[in-house]
Amino acid sequence: MTSPAEQAQSLTPAAIEAAYGLIQPYVHRTSLLTCKTLDSIASTPQSPESLVGTPFEGQTPARPKFRLFFKCENLQRIGAFKARGNHAQALALAASTLHIPAHIVMPSISTSSKIAGTRSYGANVVFSGSTSVEREAVVAEIQAKTNAILIPPYDDFNIICGQGTTALELNAQYTEQVRSEHTLDAVITPVGGGGLNSGVATFFSDKPTRVFGAEPAYEGADDCRRGLQAGERVTKVSTLTIADGLRTPVGLLNWEVISNKCKVEGVFAVTEEQIKAAMRLVLERMKVVVEPSAVVGLAVCLFDEEFRRRVEEESGEKGWDVAIVFSGGNTTVEAIAKLFG
Amino acid sequence: MTSPAEQAQSLTPAAIEAAYGLIQPYVHRTSLLTCKTLDSIASTPQSPESLVGTPFEGQTPARPKFRLFFKCENLQRIGAFKARGNHAQALALAASTLHIPAHIVMPSISTSSKIAGTRSYGANVVFSGSTSVEREAVVAEIQAKTNAILIPPYDDFNIICGQGTTALELNAQYTEQVRSEHTLDAVITPVGGGGLNSGVATFFSDKPTRVFGAEPAYEGADDCRRGLQAGERVTKVSTLTIADGLRTPVGLLNWEVISNKCKVEGVFAVTEEQIKAAMRLVLERMKVVVEPSAVVGLAVCLFDEEFRRRVEEESGEKGWDVAIVFSGGNTTVEAIAKLFG
Repeated sequence: MTSPAEQAQSLTPAAIEAAYGLIQPYVHRTSLLTCKTLDSIASTPQSPESLVGTPFEGQTPARPKFRLFFKCENLQRIGAFKARGNHAQALALAASTLHIPAHIVMPSISTSSKIAGTRSYGANVVFSGSTSVEREAVVAEIQAKTNAILIPPYDDFNIICGQGTTALELNAQYTEQVRSEHTLDAVITPVGGGGLNSGVATFFSDKPTRVFGAEPAYEGADDCRRGLQAGERVTKVSTLTIADGLRTPVGLLNWEVISNKCKVEGVFAVTEEQIKAAMRLVLERMKVVVEPSAVVGLAVCLFDEEFRRRVEEESGEKGWDVAIVFSGGNTTVEAIAKLFG
Repeated sequence: MTSPAEQAQSLTPAAIEAAYGLIQPYVHRTSLLTCKTLDSIASTPQSPESLVGTPFEGQTPARPKFRLFFKCENLQRIGAFKARGNHAQALALAASTLHIPAHIVMPSISTSSKIAGTRSYGANVVFSGSTSVEREAVVAEIQAKTNAILIPPYDDFNIICGQGTTALELNAQYTEQVRSEHTLDAVITPVGGGGLNSGVATFFSDKPTRVFGAEPAYEGADDCRRGLQAGERVTKVSTLTIADGLRTPVGLLNWEVISNKCKVEGVFAVTEEQIKAAMRLVLERMKVVVEPSAVVGLAVCLFDEEFRRRVEEESGEKGWDVAIVFSGGNTTVEAIAKLFG
């Protein structure tokens, strides 16, 4: 077994390209959408009143310029980027495509649409508690019984490469659509276990595009940001943030990438209210359905004054072209009703 | 003034093409989407139990085959097909593009997002009661005061032509995407005032594609279907169906087209529950946001046994390629919460 630091050495743009060659027949090339209304809202300074009670209270609101590009992995197969590398529905789909039995261990509090989706591909769903210790115990039991091979959810070289193909695609689409010599200034993705973010950062590691991560702040879900501040990975998280895809701590290999300042420039955290406000804008203005986890990057662009100030100071009137990865759209009308009713 | 019957003579595919030349710079060419999950659900027979209490109780459920193509006018500018010919937000946008003042008369019970959207283009919004008599009184008052020209909401030659461009586009997209010599078997659109349906029927009037209309049944909102049965246009409707874009009776000129069996083969009506079920599927499975009015056509494909039987009997295993026009997506998260909470 090589160490995470050694494995991280092999995470290169070429590895992402190789993964793309393998998975391309099985995934959608999801749209890269733009929305003038959201550009205009993101490019409008926040009101000083809206900063009261935040760390930015009393500051003059930043005046950034944004042109946003939304990579719609909510329109991916199984409704999430996970089709590119993992998990639950993705693994169930892959197993059914290859006619292999699949046993999927899921926390019993999982969203009913995710459970139903996983079962719809013929997988055997086994429930566990919601901590990683409880989950791993159930996994060990199934492995002992069935000799099944464990596919880890995010802390895995191949999974990071598969999820990094999101970056390869969006970068190509940006070049096609914007038809210019301009390069993307930045990409923001959600950070849960960190597979998507570290994959995207790997792809852009030899390019000028900056990569950022976004997390919920609620009940310590900002484990990655806190870990970066402390200089040490946070290994346990217990949060019930509405961004239910982002409740896990960052994996070991993922941490090797994300904590490398040359690969990921920073990770920002947003509040539950900011996530809801971003989700509302996407549903009402862009007319696409996203789950709360998907919009944390947009929430950073809209509300984080540190990020907004940086865009203003580095680019002034010119502004930044920012790609935001909408990681998934697996929600139900009942869940939307619960959030906004 | 020519009579509606005479005006209807001039409603030809060429008139739609001419309108397209005029409006093309101002509208989006909206996507024509497909969704395997919805094809599969629509192509599964309903359970005999689900027919209990409907006019189809006791019948063997039909076994139609559908390949569905969704024309996403919910992704159109202003969030609806109306950008192609009228109204409220569309007119406000057109006036602002041409730097002309616009006075928009809207029922005071209009959805807040529609009112806000109209105002956001700089139009002067004036409220009226919700009946056509109340609305027309307010219009007359404004015209007397400002000399403004009245742009009627749907019962108008030019508006029908503009809205008919939806058909021209979707037909071209179908040919591009399906890459075959096959023609679309049918198109279904919502019917409120009837501008969209009669425009689409005009475009297809010299082609083999069948055109159908769909309406809500609630509180007599199925005025078009009832009118066709009685052989006479229903002129008054008073309904609070959740499909709030379809609460108006069919216009005079629109009726000339829709009541012509050579142009529109039939109009079907669906219940509030069927509209909600269709809306849920579109949000949760296709991940696009639609308003209730937009999905009445899909609800016909999913639930109307008369329509489903016809598809089965006319095409058997081959099935029908059916285009469904999603007329708009102007809703709010609160409205979704109210429907499904």
